[in-house]
Amino acid sequence: MKEKVAVILSGCGVYDGAEIHESVITLLRLDQRGAQVQCFAPNIEQLHVVDHYSGDEMDESRNVLVESARIARGKIKDVRELHVDDFDALILPGGFGAAKNLSDFALSGANCTVQPDVLAAAKAFADAAKPIGLICISPVLAARIFGNGVECTIGNDHDTAAALTQMGAVHRECEVSEIIEDSARKLVSTPAYMLAQSISQAASGINKLVDRVLELVHGG
Amino acid sequence: MKEKVAVILSGCGVYDGAEIHESVITLLRLDQRGAQVQCFAPNIEQLHVVDHYSGDEMDESRNVLVESARIARGKIKDVRELHVDDFDALILPGGFGAAKNLSDFALSGANCTVQPDVLAAAKAFADAAKPIGLICISPVLAARIFGNGVECTIGNDHDTAAALTQMGAVHRECEVSEIIEDSARKLVSTPAYMLAQSISQAASGINKLVDRVLELVHGG
Repeated sequence: MKEKVAVILSGCGVYDGAEIHESVITLLRLDQRGAQVQCFAPNIEQLHVVDHYSGDEMDESRNVLVESARIARGKIKDVRELHVDDFDALILPGGFGAAKNLSDFALSGANCTVQPDVLAAAKAFADAAKPIGLICISPVLAARIFGNGVECTIGNDHDTAAALTQMGAVHRECEVSEIIEDSARKLVSTPAYMLAQSISQAASGINKLVDRVLELVHGG
Repeated sequence: MKEKVAVILSGCGVYDGAEIHESVITLLRLDQRGAQVQCFAPNIEQLHVVDHYSGDEMDESRNVLVESARIARGKIKDVRELHVDDFDALILPGGFGAAKNLSDFALSGANCTVQPDVLAAAKAFADAAKPIGLICISPVLAARIFGNGVECTIGNDHDTAAALTQMGAVHRECEVSEIIEDSARKLVSTPAYMLAQSISQAASGINKLVDRVLELVHGG
């Protein structure tokens, strides 16, 4: 029986959207393992647009759903259309989009809020005890989704880990090739480009995360 | 000894730039095989910008190098800085960008011309007898790079194959999981999303292409 997995993207590009390598590796592994995948994104403007060649902010605006559609080859839906009953699991790749578009963590740190449509969707999976995978910086959403005591990793960055702790999460350090699992909450996280020095390093942890999320669909 | 491979991107998104899955799978396989990779793109405006959610053309302009930098996480250079002596092989992923930005094949078909900086770079690899990999639609450049008689594949699309033949190439049909090799010219091609129904199908052929290009660096 094919697992049905929802993937929430946050734009298209590490500095203002979803990290492209992490997103594609997630989609590739899910497909290689036989899962059925549907991508989603919030239908909102990006916080800003970054020129990924120069690193400078650009004087234009882009929509998160429209840009995420580039990674999904057009096969993507507004996250408001994400109904938990239709899926077995949820995965969020990283990239600054998780901290700029899915939440305002990049601006507000431990005082951040999560975009309401994304929060509602993620909470529905948590409430239904369906597994969630959070990659790279996206575990900054964990405390808002699951509440106090949720265990997760963003690698070993001291300041980010401190902010997570302040929000009520329990941060656990993790190697790039490994995953952290909160078994009670069926939450799996991996550092990916929070630590990765190469795309294959990022893939090593993401592949483990995808595999574990799919195992958890079947009871672990 | 690590192989040094140049990858030329054509934007960021299947409908107006480089196909993102094909590009990331190429970068992942090269890294997993231990190759050193440098991405390049032409510093030109895209032919146009397509809303990948609606499929409609957007009233804005984007730069191929700047958008390609999203896939390369900022680590990209103008293709004018691509010196063949610094590399062992060249790979071009597909996406409409190959037919809209690297060439005007999407507009002019068999009468197309190749963007001059891209053509000069690719011809230099051909002249130096260094292997080239062309993915998806990018074999439309083959006849301009290598001249008459070059063997390559774009899968089995009749009209595209006829245009290649008209340009002087010899088209060979190919399954999505396979590659076509012109041994005399050290050219390897694979259909990828010209045929792929899923990302793992695209990966099956691209992984073979990358592996074969790296073998050819060492004499095949």
